[in-house]
Amino acid sequence: MAYVAAINALRAYFGERIITSDAARQAHGQDESSHAPRLPDAVLYPHTTEAVAQAVKICAAHDMPVIPFGAGTSLEGHVLAVKGGLSIDMTEMNQVLSVNSADLDVRVQTGITRKALNDYIRSDGVFMPVDPGANCTIGGMISTRASGTNAVRYGTMREQVLSLQVVTAAGDIVETGTRARKSAAGYDLTHMFIGAEGTLGIVTEASLKVYGIPETISAGICSFRSVKDAVDTAITSIQMGLPISRIELMDTFSMKAVNAYSKLGYAEQPTLFLEFTGAKVSVSEQIASFRDIAGEFGGSDITFASAQEDINKLWHARHQLYYATKAMAPGKHVVTTDACVPISNLAACMEETRIDLEEAGVTATMLGHVGDGNFHSIILVDPENPIDMQLADDLNARMMRRAINMDGTATGEHGIGIGKQKFLEWEKADTLPLMRSIKTALDPKGIMNPGKIFTP
Amino acid sequence: MAYVAAINALRAYFGERIITSDAARQAHGQDESSHAPRLPDAVLYPHTTEAVAQAVKICAAHDMPVIPFGAGTSLEGHVLAVKGGLSIDMTEMNQVLSVNSADLDVRVQTGITRKALNDYIRSDGVFMPVDPGANCTIGGMISTRASGTNAVRYGTMREQVLSLQVVTAAGDIVETGTRARKSAAGYDLTHMFIGAEGTLGIVTEASLKVYGIPETISAGICSFRSVKDAVDTAITSIQMGLPISRIELMDTFSMKAVNAYSKLGYAEQPTLFLEFTGAKVSVSEQIASFRDIAGEFGGSDITFASAQEDINKLWHARHQLYYATKAMAPGKHVVTTDACVPISNLAACMEETRIDLEEAGVTATMLGHVGDGNFHSIILVDPENPIDMQLADDLNARMMRRAINMDGTATGEHGIGIGKQKFLEWEKADTLPLMRSIKTALDPKGIMNPGKIFTP
Repeated sequence: MAYVAAINALRAYFGERIITSDAARQAHGQDESSHAPRLPDAVLYPHTTEAVAQAVKICAAHDMPVIPFGAGTSLEGHVLAVKGGLSIDMTEMNQVLSVNSADLDVRVQTGITRKALNDYIRSDGVFMPVDPGANCTIGGMISTRASGTNAVRYGTMREQVLSLQVVTAAGDIVETGTRARKSAAGYDLTHMFIGAEGTLGIVTEASLKVYGIPETISAGICSFRSVKDAVDTAITSIQMGLPISRIELMDTFSMKAVNAYSKLGYAEQPTLFLEFTGAKVSVSEQIASFRDIAGEFGGSDITFASAQEDINKLWHARHQLYYATKAMAPGKHVVTTDACVPISNLAACMEETRIDLEEAGVTATMLGHVGDGNFHSIILVDPENPIDMQLADDLNARMMRRAINMDGTATGEHGIGIGKQKFLEWEKADTLPLMRSIKTALDPKGIMNPGKIFTP
Repeated sequence: MAYVAAINALRAYFGERIITSDAARQAHGQDESSHAPRLPDAVLYPHTTEAVAQAVKICAAHDMPVIPFGAGTSLEGHVLAVKGGLSIDMTEMNQVLSVNSADLDVRVQTGITRKALNDYIRSDGVFMPVDPGANCTIGGMISTRASGTNAVRYGTMREQVLSLQVVTAAGDIVETGTRARKSAAGYDLTHMFIGAEGTLGIVTEASLKVYGIPETISAGICSFRSVKDAVDTAITSIQMGLPISRIELMDTFSMKAVNAYSKLGYAEQPTLFLEFTGAKVSVSEQIASFRDIAGEFGGSDITFASAQEDINKLWHARHQLYYATKAMAPGKHVVTTDACVPISNLAACMEETRIDLEEAGVTATMLGHVGDGNFHSIILVDPENPIDMQLADDLNARMMRRAINMDGTATGEHGIGIGKQKFLEWEKADTLPLMRSIKTALDPKGIMNPGKIFTP
């Protein structure tokens, strides 16, 4: 066992709450990615920020790594204990501390999941819109700058956070902002911690914006002859100022997968899944405008539904894509890629990626958060077959290079973790020295989630 | 003359473009605040980022301060050369480098003013919404995290920047992001430089979001019996999801000042100035909803105008408040204050401030960007009278304390500069060490706009 002195010191303070069982270490040494597990030496479930601070202080005194752990849904190995250390599982710090309806903000402990938060605040008539597929913790979403299908309307986690309580690498407790909607008071530390993947400190509480639940919701789909026609419809809709809440693109292969998996009869063509919200008149007007625009680009089979049951059915089909893809080749695993480009380059980037996938002879589906220019491919692989895994790696690397060359980024919403460090170097060669300087300044001992973001 | 060796080295490279005339130094040693001028030793108007980088390199080699200078409209002494040095006037780096209508973004050199930018892109059917009163440069707006009357709808500069080109303290040229709408690739350096007041580097180019010019614009006013009724109307409108473009509050004293100055006949009561934009049907619907809400809080004299001439007239009255206040006591100067609180605390904060102003016996107007909880008081002072100036200082300090105690911030949009360092310490005692660490990491020699943000 490593870090014996550190664990003894932690035990002296926390007693039996410092867990070193194989089961706990195993559960905290992996995520939902295909990266091999890397176990921490111990696990703690704190209940207070003070406990987190105390744990970090003890770890700092012994140079023991500290890895914040949320729902374990990372796709890039963020929570793997690549250098061992203490995994701080935040999921028992899951309280809603206040709901301020007048100000449309809430204060939460960051171990709460997004679904639990939305269940809690629904009776106040408000919701927190960011919705990555998984039921992640708010802390994980903040730390990876997560987004999802609503980002086109509400922005990503980057736009939702008013202030953060953070335990620094020295074990100090600080508050990065206030509940004021805006501020020009000094450096923007709030955004410094959003997306920092736990490498600069541990986010323990957050003040988040919330939004009134819309009066009317209407969801629909529309088929196109090509990805380009679908993307051009999205571009034009956004240019015209249509306040679309969601606009998601599934390609032909995705529609085939979903039809087969959920026994549906959708047209097997590039398809937009849409949602409009607002006052009733406004939603009708938005749909009418959308029909006009889609018509110009050959959109067909346009169907809109307003009954909650039908809306759920439609989004269920979209959200099942991950499992529908897996079901195309039982026994295989999937590699999920993530890139984001300016929307005007999205069709070209997706089409070139599709050609690359076909030339490589792999089975894969593709989908896009088309309003943001963000897209994923879900590639089926045999994890036991090194040639297969290498093929997926190469396809991913070419997709990253393609996105970067098209004025885009190597990750729209999944983060760097351990999986994308090479691509971060491709994308940010010039600014990486600044990032490293900040890391050294705020975490001089290098104990905060080491081995993430930066190549060792 | 100080920095002789540095200036000689700059002259060796830039020749006569290094200006040391009294007139140029004078023009670059002051802003629009009441802070006493502090002159730089030399001034350079670069035309390229490479020139900025070269100037910074030479200054760094000689430990000479570098102060970026825009339109000189700061209200907190941001551009004063408190330690002398080279003032880099960015106003000749004022080109629009690209307009990407499909992606709704533009690339500019940061010396362009916001009005020049909007004039340039109007024919593309788009606009950049952030509108502080002054015709600032984009670089100045980025560096102070500026906002204005549109922030309730579009956000502040914090929300508009996709990527920045920055010259670092070492004279390196880096790009902080891409044109992708979102990214999870490493630390958010873009937001690190937004609001850094030139203390971490010089922002030379920016990729900014722009928005389609709305189909219909309608502006209106509505009077209330109290500031609280006006604020409650704003809160309810925002809670209901009304997509208001602007909602500005002027208090009774402001309305008196404006009526007198512009010979208008507005009711001399707390008044909301509003703007709704969008498709025609949607704007009518928004106005109808607003009338209902305002009615519940006793709103009266509700008038809306859709003709551009009438809209301009209405906003002109609002934008003239600064001069209207000054005209109340010819010969006096004004001290402009700036605070921001959660909107639910805005009425109380403004009302307590009004009582404080009255008890102090000063003449002042108050206005609020009520959608953001941001407000200002404009206090008339005799700059030759130290008692008067002390009174204004004390009122400002109490307003800052009041805002901070109400979960707010000491500056919503004007920044820290040299004028608010004490208040930053009140507000951010816990995070100032982190800010100082970042400053030291990115500017180890302390040459970038020294004496700003942090107390010496």
